[in-house]
Amino acid sequence: HLPIALIAGPCQMESREHALEMAAALKDIAARRGIGLIYKTSFDKANRTSGQAARGVGLEAALPVFAEIRDRLGLPCLTDVHEAAHCAAVAPVVDVLQIPAFLCRQTDLLLAAAATGRAVNVKKGQFLAPWDMKHVAAKITGAGNPRVLLTERGTSFGYNTLVSDMRGLPVMAEETGLPVIFDATHSVQQPGGQGGASGGQRQFVETLSRAAVAVGVAGLFIETHEDPDRAPSDGPNMVPLAQFEALITRLQALDAVVKGWAA
Amino acid sequence: HLPIALIAGPCQMESREHALEMAAALKDIAARRGIGLIYKTSFDKANRTSGQAARGVGLEAALPVFAEIRDRLGLPCLTDVHEAAHCAAVAPVVDVLQIPAFLCRQTDLLLAAAATGRAVNVKKGQFLAPWDMKHVAAKITGAGNPRVLLTERGTSFGYNTLVSDMRGLPVMAEETGLPVIFDATHSVQQPGGQGGASGGQRQFVETLSRAAVAVGVAGLFIETHEDPDRAPSDGPNMVPLAQFEALITRLQALDAVVKGWAA
Amino acid sequence: HLPIALIAGPCQMESREHALEMAAALKDIAARRGIGLIYKTSFDKANRTSGQAARGVGLEAALPVFAEIRDRLGLPCLTDVHEAAHCAAVAPVVDVLQIPAFLCRQTDLLLAAAATGRAVNVKKGQFLAPWDMKHVAAKITGAGNPRVLLTERGTSFGYNTLVSDMRGLPVMAEETGLPVIFDATHSVQQPGGQGGASGGQRQFVETLSRAAVAVGVAGLFIETHEDPDRAPSDGPNMVPLAQFEALITRLQALDAVVKGWAA
Amino acid sequence: HLPIALIAGPCQMESREHALEMAAALKDIAARRGIGLIYKTSFDKANRTSGQAARGVGLEAALPVFAEIRDRLGLPCLTDVHEAAHCAAVAPVVDVLQIPAFLCRQTDLLLAAAATGRAVNVKKGQFLAPWDMKHVAAKITGAGNPRVLLTERGTSFGYNTLVSDMRGLPVMAEETGLPVIFDATHSVQQPGGQGGASGGQRQFVETLSRAAVAVGVAGLFIETHEDPDRAPSDGPNMVPLAQFEALITRLQALDAVVKGWAA
Repeated sequence: HLPIALIAGPCQMESREHALEMAAALKDIAARRGIGLIYKTSFDKANRTSGQAARGVGLEAALPVFAEIRDRLGLPCLTDVHEAAHCAAVAPVVDVLQIPAFLCRQTDLLLAAAATGRAVNVKKGQFLAPWDMKHVAAKITGAGNPRVLLTERGTSFGYNTLVSDMRGLPVMAEETGLPVIFDATHSVQQPGGQGGASGGQRQFVETLSRAAVAVGVAGLFIETHEDPDRAPSDGPNMVPLAQFEALITRLQALDAVVKGWAA
Repeated sequence: HLPIALIAGPCQMESREHALEMAAALKDIAARRGIGLIYKTSFDKANRTSGQAARGVGLEAALPVFAEIRDRLGLPCLTDVHEAAHCAAVAPVVDVLQIPAFLCRQTDLLLAAAATGRAVNVKKGQFLAPWDMKHVAAKITGAGNPRVLLTERGTSFGYNTLVSDMRGLPVMAEETGLPVIFDATHSVQQPGGQGGASGGQRQFVETLSRAAVAVGVAGLFIETHEDPDRAPSDGPNMVPLAQFEALITRLQALDAVVKGWAA
Repeated sequence: HLPIALIAGPCQMESREHALEMAAALKDIAARRGIGLIYKTSFDKANRTSGQAARGVGLEAALPVFAEIRDRLGLPCLTDVHEAAHCAAVAPVVDVLQIPAFLCRQTDLLLAAAATGRAVNVKKGQFLAPWDMKHVAAKITGAGNPRVLLTERGTSFGYNTLVSDMRGLPVMAEETGLPVIFDATHSVQQPGGQGGASGGQRQFVETLSRAAVAVGVAGLFIETHEDPDRAPSDGPNMVPLAQFEALITRLQALDAVVKGWAA
Repeated sequence: HLPIALIAGPCQMESREHALEMAAALKDIAARRGIGLIYKTSFDKANRTSGQAARGVGLEAALPVFAEIRDRLGLPCLTDVHEAAHCAAVAPVVDVLQIPAFLCRQTDLLLAAAATGRAVNVKKGQFLAPWDMKHVAAKITGAGNPRVLLTERGTSFGYNTLVSDMRGLPVMAEETGLPVIFDATHSVQQPGGQGGASGGQRQFVETLSRAAVAVGVAGLFIETHEDPDRAPSDGPNMVPLAQFEALITRLQALDAVVKGWAA
């Protein structure tokens, strides 16, 4: 039972400069904290609440930036894909392809991601039970790619709110044997909660992160930004970069206790 | 306030012969009942619970069959699309492009469907509130295509079950001014309810259909099959063809009462 | 299959005069519409959101008023009981004892109500599945009182909202053989939705009533008031008395269609 | 921020001998672990799923047993009350009166409990939002009794299942300033999940306990039994006594980390 790792970064790639700054800052924190880090950012927010919302720099512009982050900073990268054709395009420059929650049942997308040989992180759909994720994982592993991560990011609970069922973490881990990640920033989303945009409850990121780490997870997914209230997407649920290291420090302390029992 | 129309057919296109037989049978029923009919069938079940499940004949094989149904039977056709590239391919041979519920927030797919000029039927995501669908519709209408239908097909309610909130029907209609359809066969799905496949509660199709018609809808979406228990998908929730006409007859009687008030 | 009956009245007994006026007004409507009527009102709102809220005239003051309504107007009466000791006290002056939803699993209260020999209307708890109500009913029928009604009034759905699952109406009816009532005014409550008080969505009373009648019910429970916005409780979800008769007329038209099929 | 305390014991008082044995065993564990303990047991299970189920020894028989546990073992005791009249009866022999979740909105019961001057532990209703509990607490504190505990025990989530929303723990604590307890054995109940009885998921008691302690709570409520599978109630969710001490030891380790930050 390895210590927790991190998947972290800003929700969307805003520019080359911003991406490199954020990646460098997170790399420093990870080095100081002795924690594994995968840099996460989206080249395209393909499912915004409103068609008017900012979507990111796009696939073409993002590819060289991912390459640069890996080359210059030595950080592994993760990004999400929305159509099967994206998979082969991004695979050369990222280490993990991520399947968005809404798309976690799209067989062609899962197979295209599997075919790249890259690790695939599947977000659990807000509409799925934890025990249904083994069928999702099997679509990828059955295609010959065993490098699958499963990420919990909240379940539909009435309207415009998600709930995090902590029972789902061990259920997914035990049924699949795969690493399970807890996404603490999307789990506090309030879908459609601000009318034409999703709201969020940043104040509960630490609450839910602590709970997940205490239950036992392979890693955490936390979006962060130097100024979340001015971020183009997911601002209400991102953690301010200035608070990130202290948060991670506390989570590592809990993780050390929990992983000590499993040793 | 027009009488209810029907979107009906078997869940997936199993073969040319099966498709033509089902379409002819439904056309006869619709003619006897004096009800508008759009023939629905899927060329690809792209999001089955299990990767091993049957997906349908595929896009290439389906195109001439849709053309034949329209030409020989004069029936308008509807099919669902899963990637943006499908839209232009199917638009020449169908009258309505359908956006699956899981994909109702995928901006590129909505825009590609809008660009065909065909009517677009968007299924409401199981994870969405009724009042969030106006943003979905606006992605299509804002692209210059006003021919949008919105379809209710159940909302996540705990695990492996959906619930049909009848308040959502007038909410969507009033907020958008668009025709609202009630999908009575997917609303009784039990996602993942049979382990590696979705279950369903066929016995409640009439219950929920009656409720929706009494509330007031533009139409009903009902999948039907001559032998649902042997159908390759959605068997547990499809209505046996032999019971279809009697069901429609009862729903028309309710609709006549309700639409009489609105006249 | 008898036509629908009504359980109707103001949420709480505000005064003798108000109770008699409301009862007389409802009696006139029921006579004009040819519909069975049970007059409902509460002598004590024992579970208000806030301890500061008005609770009603109380048990002692209410007893002679119920007696007067029955004697002068010939209307059967229903009221809710909160502790076992209430049952024997109110039984002489009312025809139906009602068990509140929160209390539907309290065995002693159910048994005390059963022991009066009066009909007992049990509201289904917001936390119960429809198929669990047969155990509730069996507590009463097993005590020798077969005169039980079951009332659907919404199910918890996330926070501060209820959803009405129309499948529950036939489930309860078929599993118990008992009359099933749909409570259209509490089903649109928003518990705690106004901070220190429950909110409500009066605009959906007709939506849900129509749905329930189309599915098939023995009766409807609808609270009404001549001026809901000034009522001491449940104002946001009560139907204005001035709109009551038109609503009932529409529901009777639907019911006639549905009960015609079952004949 | 004090270390966590325990409310623990068997679901129901089965006999004087059983109660004394369990209390003595738990006292020994608490002494070894240096943790505060309140002994919990019910004299009457007043809301069983089925009317046929065992209800416990009853109020009269229980009173001297509570007195004996307090006198001989020096353990504070907690029991639940179901009608206002119970409060004065049990107050002389217990230290904490508990309001069951279904009854948490019953004003008279809350006031009667408040009037005893004993501490009052209110279970949060499965149908209530965390932010609605401040109104419940205010009914007691407003009556002059500030000694209130609030206990989370799961929220309705679809049918026959509860979910534990960990955000509710800090919400209740911050809004009321009162100690918040996490009930780990009722949170894994499956109401009605075994047909005529509630089921339970004992395997998740530790999962949810760890999560709650990591979030930060004043105490844990855990029912335990030397042979849960033969217990007359709540067997599926009680923790075997033989596993209790190891569980508490792990929870204390997490609590020490968390309370260390708050110091």
